[in-house]
Amino acid sequence: MREIGQKELDDIALGAALLGSGGGGDPYIGKLMAHGAIKDCGPVKMLSADEVPDDALVLPIAMMGAPTVLSEKAANGSEYRQLYDMARQYYGKDFFAVMPMEAGGVNSMLPFVAAARLGLPLIDADGMGRAFPELQMVTFTIGGVSATPLALTDEKGNSMMLKTISNKWTEDMARVICMACGGSVSVALYIMDGKTLKSFAVKDIVSRTQMLGEAIRTAKNSADKTPEQAFLQAAEGYKIFTGKIGDVQREVKGGFNFGKVILEGISSDKGRQAEVEFQNENLIARVDGKVKAVTPDLICLVDSETFVPVPTDALKYGKRVMVVALECFPLWRTPEGIALVGPRYFGYDVDYVPVETLNAAEVK
Amino acid sequence: MREIGQKELDDIALGAALLGSGGGGDPYIGKLMAHGAIKDCGPVKMLSADEVPDDALVLPIAMMGAPTVLSEKAANGSEYRQLYDMARQYYGKDFFAVMPMEAGGVNSMLPFVAAARLGLPLIDADGMGRAFPELQMVTFTIGGVSATPLALTDEKGNSMMLKTISNKWTEDMARVICMACGGSVSVALYIMDGKTLKSFAVKDIVSRTQMLGEAIRTAKNSADKTPEQAFLQAAEGYKIFTGKIGDVQREVKGGFNFGKVILEGISSDKGRQAEVEFQNENLIARVDGKVKAVTPDLICLVDSETFVPVPTDALKYGKRVMVVALECFPLWRTPEGIALVGPRYFGYDVDYVPVETLNAAEVK
Repeated sequence: MREIGQKELDDIALGAALLGSGGGGDPYIGKLMAHGAIKDCGPVKMLSADEVPDDALVLPIAMMGAPTVLSEKAANGSEYRQLYDMARQYYGKDFFAVMPMEAGGVNSMLPFVAAARLGLPLIDADGMGRAFPELQMVTFTIGGVSATPLALTDEKGNSMMLKTISNKWTEDMARVICMACGGSVSVALYIMDGKTLKSFAVKDIVSRTQMLGEAIRTAKNSADKTPEQAFLQAAEGYKIFTGKIGDVQREVKGGFNFGKVILEGISSDKGRQAEVEFQNENLIARVDGKVKAVTPDLICLVDSETFVPVPTDALKYGKRVMVVALECFPLWRTPEGIALVGPRYFGYDVDYVPVETLNAAEVK
Repeated sequence: MREIGQKELDDIALGAALLGSGGGGDPYIGKLMAHGAIKDCGPVKMLSADEVPDDALVLPIAMMGAPTVLSEKAANGSEYRQLYDMARQYYGKDFFAVMPMEAGGVNSMLPFVAAARLGLPLIDADGMGRAFPELQMVTFTIGGVSATPLALTDEKGNSMMLKTISNKWTEDMARVICMACGGSVSVALYIMDGKTLKSFAVKDIVSRTQMLGEAIRTAKNSADKTPEQAFLQAAEGYKIFTGKIGDVQREVKGGFNFGKVILEGISSDKGRQAEVEFQNENLIARVDGKVKAVTPDLICLVDSETFVPVPTDALKYGKRVMVVALECFPLWRTPEGIALVGPRYFGYDVDYVPVETLNAAEVK
């Protein structure tokens, strides 16, 4: 157990932007909400997954929908109590802790709001180790855990308890409700006991997120490494490319942001060209036409000087960025994981190859 | 209390087609399902609203969505038990009876399936006295009764309990779920106690539906009246027009069937023209450009010889029909009723005028 206060939160938010892999929503508004909640209610106690009793129930909390909408209709604070009460009525039992389901992006922050306001600890684990766009895309689906009963509420006071025959049905049904409610809702889902949690969760991911944020913040302070070396080593990242944004193509289809960014190489990549395609998150990176990283491995664009992550909606002509890839959580590399979140699910006709294989010749 | 068996059911289905006012779905498939349920479980006991104790809870049952879909993915029979159990878990209390919410169309029949299979009586009342296309369009909305908690299930086993801040929100949220589930779902909604029921329900509507069906079936047997006189007098109907269908225009928009039928006058209406516009249900009837009936009064097209109702999806060039209008339930004529289901809600720029005023000169 350790306490998360304002300072830790800032690093977690910065690291979460990296794990967002271009999507997941800017953690900024979530960070403001978490700061407010911690100011009102005190620091949040964070427990490791192994500190959860096998029979204790945990309540994962997330927002669903377009993170950009959150800035216009922020959660009003009472949603988490509402979700808690709905889930409690269903199970007839109190919850031991809240938990994030998605470490990347804004959903890294909202569980802290819930934990602080509910006076519960937060579990240092999630179901992705990054950000993904759909509800069924969690390690728990691989483990056969049901996303439902799912409790959902909007900021106006509409709510529902959903039960479905598969996690894909959960996604489909909750998604249309999310759209009908104005584009964002709060949910509690994958409610599970400690035993299940320990079997399939991405453990210690909040701590890793914090470490990544700290690595970005302190890269320039290294005594014996260049800032880039310091950042890459701390992040265990593969440097795929450094370039200047030459073009950004965007399209909104079915509620998702599709697009492609073209990079013209600079410094050691001068004369080469890279492109990164995204569907909310960055999904495939090619250099001179050759795949160098592909989902579910993480593809992150960061400022080439400060290493601050650049989400897809902040991509602008002329900006200098480094493309960094991180290895995904091992469960994503199983056949079941690749079926859920591999390149073919997103419509790319390529096989998944681990980033370390694709970049065997590169300096890690 | 009286019992409803196979024979009564046939007349109710025929009358429900009339009260469907062109929409509400052909009761035929629902009738087959109700026949099956009564064959398996015995006749259904029907109680008047006044026989319900003030503090007893009733469970209104309906299908939502496109009735045409019902023929391809019929309720599998377990839905009603599922809805009952969900609602029972919510209230922690058993239900006294089931009840229809919509007397017109297929929703006249499905509550009999539920009543027979659940072994519960059915209440001789509904919330419309006809058919309407949206969930909030019930007399109970005027009475301030909430449509939620609403229990919903599809035939695959997906389900949800919904709570909303208004009955229009119930419609909007349940509608998108209905579409996501393939176009039709089963719901229990407007769960209420006997006291509320007695205050706002359209009482004795199932008995009236049965009487209308019987009137259609027996019109030709009258000793002292023409069949048309016998039918119109029993139905308390206003004969608006008799004509041959000259044209039918149809359009599907937002899940609703929009359209217009043009009638060329025959017999006493020879040389005149009428048009009836519909959005699922017939909503406005004009003769030579002059409004003769408008929602919420009922506008029904019936075969000019047999008086069998002709739903909008069976309108065909050359068919001879009579346009008959019936007075709606008095609550619909209040300002609140007109706001919910009057002509302007459906986009017609005319004021509501009661059918008996519009046809003061006609023979009733």
